[in-house]
Amino acid sequence: MTSVEIEIISARWVLPIDQNQPLANKITVLENHAIVVEERCIIAIGPSDELLARYPDASHTALNHHILMPGLVNAHNLTAMSLLKGLTNPQPLPKWLNDIWTIERQWLSESFARDGVALGIAEMLLSGTTCFSDSYLFPNASASITESLGMRAQIHFPISEQASNWAQNSEEYFEKGLEIADEYRQSALITTGFGPYSANRVSNKSFERIAMLAEEIDRPIHLYMHQHEAEINDSIDKYGLQPIQRLSELGVLSPRTQVIQAGLLDTNSEQLLVESGASVIHCPGASLNLQTAYSPSTKLLKQGVNMGLGTDSAACGNTLNLFSQLNLAVMLSAEADIQKPLSCAAALRMATLGGAETLGLDSEIGSLSVGKQADIIAIDTQTPSLQPLQSITRQLVNAGADAPVSHVWVAGQRKVSDGQLVDIDLNAVLAKSDWWKKQLAS
Amino acid sequence: MTSVEIEIISARWVLPIDQNQPLANKITVLENHAIVVEERCIIAIGPSDELLARYPDASHTALNHHILMPGLVNAHNLTAMSLLKGLTNPQPLPKWLNDIWTIERQWLSESFARDGVALGIAEMLLSGTTCFSDSYLFPNASASITESLGMRAQIHFPISEQASNWAQNSEEYFEKGLEIADEYRQSALITTGFGPYSANRVSNKSFERIAMLAEEIDRPIHLYMHQHEAEINDSIDKYGLQPIQRLSELGVLSPRTQVIQAGLLDTNSEQLLVESGASVIHCPGASLNLQTAYSPSTKLLKQGVNMGLGTDSAACGNTLNLFSQLNLAVMLSAEADIQKPLSCAAALRMATLGGAETLGLDSEIGSLSVGKQADIIAIDTQTPSLQPLQSITRQLVNAGADAPVSHVWVAGQRKVSDGQLVDIDLNAVLAKSDWWKKQLAS
Repeated sequence: MTSVEIEIISARWVLPIDQNQPLANKITVLENHAIVVEERCIIAIGPSDELLARYPDASHTALNHHILMPGLVNAHNLTAMSLLKGLTNPQPLPKWLNDIWTIERQWLSESFARDGVALGIAEMLLSGTTCFSDSYLFPNASASITESLGMRAQIHFPISEQASNWAQNSEEYFEKGLEIADEYRQSALITTGFGPYSANRVSNKSFERIAMLAEEIDRPIHLYMHQHEAEINDSIDKYGLQPIQRLSELGVLSPRTQVIQAGLLDTNSEQLLVESGASVIHCPGASLNLQTAYSPSTKLLKQGVNMGLGTDSAACGNTLNLFSQLNLAVMLSAEADIQKPLSCAAALRMATLGGAETLGLDSEIGSLSVGKQADIIAIDTQTPSLQPLQSITRQLVNAGADAPVSHVWVAGQRKVSDGQLVDIDLNAVLAKSDWWKKQLAS
Repeated sequence: MTSVEIEIISARWVLPIDQNQPLANKITVLENHAIVVEERCIIAIGPSDELLARYPDASHTALNHHILMPGLVNAHNLTAMSLLKGLTNPQPLPKWLNDIWTIERQWLSESFARDGVALGIAEMLLSGTTCFSDSYLFPNASASITESLGMRAQIHFPISEQASNWAQNSEEYFEKGLEIADEYRQSALITTGFGPYSANRVSNKSFERIAMLAEEIDRPIHLYMHQHEAEINDSIDKYGLQPIQRLSELGVLSPRTQVIQAGLLDTNSEQLLVESGASVIHCPGASLNLQTAYSPSTKLLKQGVNMGLGTDSAACGNTLNLFSQLNLAVMLSAEADIQKPLSCAAALRMATLGGAETLGLDSEIGSLSVGKQADIIAIDTQTPSLQPLQSITRQLVNAGADAPVSHVWVAGQRKVSDGQLVDIDLNAVLAKSDWWKKQLAS
């Protein structure tokens, strides 16, 4: 019988992100603390010297000028689209979508999804994200590559009335999606959910079916909503209701709903959203690039709405580095109302525990506490962009994107060490992405 | 007699930034080219195999999956303020200034300036900036540490009517400033200029003297202007003129003038600015954080105004990584008018040749061409954030801040190699900044 290996990670600073209030104004910073990891889980957090004495046989990783914190949760991504980076300039969303769909129809396949997701996972791990939410065609390929690379994700299988490279009609979307939900029911790393993309692209009948099935098999629903005027007007023309009103009537809005953006809200739709208990996912970079309405973060948080932070796809948001979105979220909130900008503490919470709550995974991840999964990152503070370290919270939010993420653990497994991927062959991932570049240019 | 060492840097891609039009829509990309450096200068650019054959005895640096381009020019910084990072949240400019001034009055000194500038130089070199413009108290200390670290800068000595830790009255500002201008007249790395901070804080008499002296000793003038409503209204109250009109009448506006922001422009002031031949410096991050009006970049470029890009101080802009400002400049222009966003080519030009033109240094730096100084950076493309490399220009602008700057040369001297500072002791720089953190917290 072999003994289970125990690892102690000691650090100069530990940010457990233990606040339960969505509007936390202060992030607890523990000094000279350590985290003890056994298999997948955190079994102790406390002063380093105490824990080192208590577990003398544990392997010890000493990070003496580092910040340890929960891995970031990217609450909205279309990861495979990383292969489409750099193909377009900023342009209005409908035009952008048309351009992208033309490319996707030609190229999208199981291998495209697999290679794009691998590329995105490499970028996310190296920049401190340990869990992402994904919503794209070929979710089976995305789930399978994610699990095989030891990354954590919530994979939302698309539901649509429109034929695509993956499914011919809504019946086939449901069938294939439910198969994936079933396949990953017991997975330690993959959860699944319904990804109907956006309100106007799915029929009432399908939404009613989604609402029923989501309840039945206890799964989330993930979709864009209230991004721009045209979307709201189209919905009124077609259904006589704004998207949020319509989805509310169809039973789709509930605490299991994850609404991306929710930017344009009148009083009525805002109230429906707040009352529903749905979460909202803020993707500031993508909103700026495609000039869609971004989430009114301080207003929604104040009303008790849970919020997560996302990059959206790298094809429109440009980066999967979630630290850069933290900074952007605060800057945009200052632009909207400089008297009440988003606090750095609330932003940091949004990128960790808020994201975990959005995905319904907060009992497992999103903060560092005993019994939770060991999804942990370390940031090296010995870098000019973080020094002098006057305020850990502010500087992680303001300049975290410029600071090196030195170590990353997902479910207790070390994925990044000294800024390098441990068990993923980066050259192989990049070679495949380069192959796709040549295909796309041909 | 020793022979002069010649270095050949060969790269997979070279971006010379050779366009002379400010609205360049395309950036030339040379493949498998090399740059030959002798002492401080570029003596040849051409296909790698030809140049390697022509200079068989030269030392050879082969960067086989890298982009070589001119070092970025940070056209506006208050570098020593890096020591004040993280002390404040986003807040309206007047309130922010009050907070910062209170701290500065207590702590600002020659050693503060020296240690802060060293910290800023480390951050800038590691993120690809090879020349910065600086405007802060104790410019003598800033100039001296910059030269001793082998960095290039334009140091604008402040002119003010208000007593400060550096000078008691405008006479002393002029005297000390002109001394610095004289001291660095022959410097290979340091140029100097007048830094009257902002229009409303300097008297008509001092502005007339600045205009006269700047002409006489051929020096630039660097100041904030038309940042926010209150500034314009104050000027009208006090002088009966908007700041730009007033400075135009005082003879301060000319091709040697560097205007930071110029955000709020009515037709008349815009015309005065355009006609003057002044350059405008866009600092998108700082504008967002302090909610000042940012430069209307596409509009000004279209009218032939030369533009540079700046970070402003890290105390308000959060980062000295100029690549991050490239991305922000494009996103903000899309937010302002998504039908006509800033092109990535124009943004890249702004951060290089545009900045050099702003500082009046374009005959020496800003592009890679024979006879110019060898201020060169290399970006490693073997990173997930840049792959697949569909468009070098777009991806440098969109995700350059996430990509590793592997090598940096200033005036032919290697300053960064494999992502590490070569001849600057980073630990010593960070130890001093940590010492200041403790002082400021005391």
